[in-house]
Amino acid sequence: MMKNVAVIGFGNVGAGVIELLWQGRVAGLALKKVVVKHPEKPRPFELPPAMLTTEISKVISAPDIQVIVELVGDAKVAAEVVLTALKNGKDVVTANKLIIAEKGDSIFTTAAKLGRFVGFRGTFVGCHSLIHELNEARLSASRIKRISAILNGTSNYILSTMTKEAKSFDEALSEAQRQGYAEQDPSQDIDGIDTAYKLRILLGLINDTRRPPGNFPIEGIGGITLQDIRYADELGYRIKLVGVIEQPEKAAFVRVHPVLIPPDSLLGSVEGNNNAIEIEDELGVTSGWVAPGAGRYPTSVAIIKDLVDIAQERKPLFPQGDALIPLGDIGELQNRYYLRFSVVDQSGVLAQICNVFWQYNASLATVMQKEGRSRDFVPVVMTTYPVKERDLWQSLTEINQLEIIKAPTQVIRIYER
Amino acid sequence: MMKNVAVIGFGNVGAGVIELLWQGRVAGLALKKVVVKHPEKPRPFELPPAMLTTEISKVISAPDIQVIVELVGDAKVAAEVVLTALKNGKDVVTANKLIIAEKGDSIFTTAAKLGRFVGFRGTFVGCHSLIHELNEARLSASRIKRISAILNGTSNYILSTMTKEAKSFDEALSEAQRQGYAEQDPSQDIDGIDTAYKLRILLGLINDTRRPPGNFPIEGIGGITLQDIRYADELGYRIKLVGVIEQPEKAAFVRVHPVLIPPDSLLGSVEGNNNAIEIEDELGVTSGWVAPGAGRYPTSVAIIKDLVDIAQERKPLFPQGDALIPLGDIGELQNRYYLRFSVVDQSGVLAQICNVFWQYNASLATVMQKEGRSRDFVPVVMTTYPVKERDLWQSLTEINQLEIIKAPTQVIRIYER
Repeated sequence: MMKNVAVIGFGNVGAGVIELLWQGRVAGLALKKVVVKHPEKPRPFELPPAMLTTEISKVISAPDIQVIVELVGDAKVAAEVVLTALKNGKDVVTANKLIIAEKGDSIFTTAAKLGRFVGFRGTFVGCHSLIHELNEARLSASRIKRISAILNGTSNYILSTMTKEAKSFDEALSEAQRQGYAEQDPSQDIDGIDTAYKLRILLGLINDTRRPPGNFPIEGIGGITLQDIRYADELGYRIKLVGVIEQPEKAAFVRVHPVLIPPDSLLGSVEGNNNAIEIEDELGVTSGWVAPGAGRYPTSVAIIKDLVDIAQERKPLFPQGDALIPLGDIGELQNRYYLRFSVVDQSGVLAQICNVFWQYNASLATVMQKEGRSRDFVPVVMTTYPVKERDLWQSLTEINQLEIIKAPTQVIRIYER
Repeated sequence: MMKNVAVIGFGNVGAGVIELLWQGRVAGLALKKVVVKHPEKPRPFELPPAMLTTEISKVISAPDIQVIVELVGDAKVAAEVVLTALKNGKDVVTANKLIIAEKGDSIFTTAAKLGRFVGFRGTFVGCHSLIHELNEARLSASRIKRISAILNGTSNYILSTMTKEAKSFDEALSEAQRQGYAEQDPSQDIDGIDTAYKLRILLGLINDTRRPPGNFPIEGIGGITLQDIRYADELGYRIKLVGVIEQPEKAAFVRVHPVLIPPDSLLGSVEGNNNAIEIEDELGVTSGWVAPGAGRYPTSVAIIKDLVDIAQERKPLFPQGDALIPLGDIGELQNRYYLRFSVVDQSGVLAQICNVFWQYNASLATVMQKEGRSRDFVPVVMTTYPVKERDLWQSLTEINQLEIIKAPTQVIRIYER
């Protein structure tokens, strides 16, 4: 039986989805209504005028519409649309990661109770094929032990541009905004919030739970300077913003932060607007995915795949359980670190820093003293061997109180892959 | 309803599958029989003695067995087992790429006619998650325009070892054999045959046809020297064995050969035993996958995923159509090339080579004259700008006839990603 689809939102992504549906690309689905704010606004292609409407509430309760594609933008409205459409017996596809990350619990529970489909591949554009994989891994009981991922195209574009074109953070951000890769207010992307939303969704998927996890540490890329990019390069690394889930046993260690990572690793090699995920399962098998993290067609294709699932009446792939995932304390983990100190240019400085590290069993792998541009201080770059995160922070608290330290110390974790 | 499974073959991969089934990892499937050659041989774990048998034909016709996992090894026996089991009404999973590449036509036709499942994720260990993607791409009508892939773990291991450990081809091959990554007769892997089998399967999948394609050019890595690896490195490239399908319009340009490729591209960054695939669709969206290309657990997990599909009664994902794919002439394509000439050490040599290239509109990007180790000749390494393959070969035919050329010229294509 043919199902009728309404798309709510005719922005960039909406246009892609509407175009593909209107061309009849999905067997079994027909485009019936498109909800817009301004019906008179010119569109990239023409639709029968009767297809356009401004009335969301009418569309999500219309008896002749079976499928709602929610591309509203505003999270409050989006959540309302998704929940009401489900309650009205519709299958729903959304690309809003905020509502899946924050309200996934009530959305998935409602859908499961009413036997409806919720598609959310559009929340993971870069790696939506993963949703299948994670579901299959669950079914074949091969538990995921570790995920490390680049999940925010905007941050990756900015870091790539700083690296390739020797631009400052601000210049690279402006460039990203000009290219349409960054919003006017880019804080969700560059502060790691967007990455954290996606990590929350992933955490639920791999543990088959709808129950939202607690809070975990989130660092963005706003503090990364061109200087750091250059020193990282000298040390043989690139800087990337990653989200990481480690589940050695019961607790999950989850965090978002920048890392130094080798350019010839999977994540290190990811350029521009791309996303990537690397997954290690309990059998020690590591797999990776790379794909564009945003953009009209990548997002449209992700949504279309959800629609194909609906057309073919496949089972939805959202989590079913409701266990709480205990979060581990990342202070317990060991890492290597990149440290950039701003110190007065006088002898004995290195010895003072090293003395503190020795007390905390933090041993140094490399030390580079750099030419300073400022009269007040010179940069000293150090990398450590693996040291417990808590010990590192305690030693830095002491070091930052030394009189020789003239500006906040830059701290970035180092991953070998 | 519970389905009973028989596994034919208890080698390395068989042991992995049997272990997971025996642990009850796949809901809805029970391990019933294991066919072995030598029942008395010690096994990595114990099974009830009554479960082991030597009689293949009894097992593939047993009415109380619904699923056959074929891990026989020998291609002739394997094809026979798969076809007979299908005809006897069983669902079948196989990891034998030779029979899927060469006899996929009759196997898929038989399965489709009898409404049976054929799983072959095990033939694509590194990238089996792709089978889903390709199927979804087909369903959502987003045509694949280009695939480039590293599909042979053995070759990649050898090339990686040559690169990282500065070993000769023969040393790296011996190392791969010691590590269990290469067979005693490695010709299928290093001559590109295995890559070609997988490419044939992919070509059928992306074009939804069971009909086997014609022959396409295949080059292996047997001629790659440590010298080439080093010169490639100086030029900023790694050497990888790739399989490529390009489908700009109607014809498919298909080939297997080594390439120079940047280390920070997806394929260039793939190390060791891993496989990788990069796919570009008609909307210009490029996605990539990386995963181990062989090994007990990776292969077992791929097979288990097929078994999960069977347990859940999902539709099989093999091609349904029977169109013939016309193959294009790769002589028409443009490439950049790496060329290593062995020339007499005298003046005027470069001019003679360049003169021939000029006649064929092949322009040179770089020229490096190297210190020779032999008294008879010195190596000269050149890279070209894009030139039509046919013109390049014609110019080389002329150059190789010059008296200054003292050994066969090495020719490797250059890809920028």
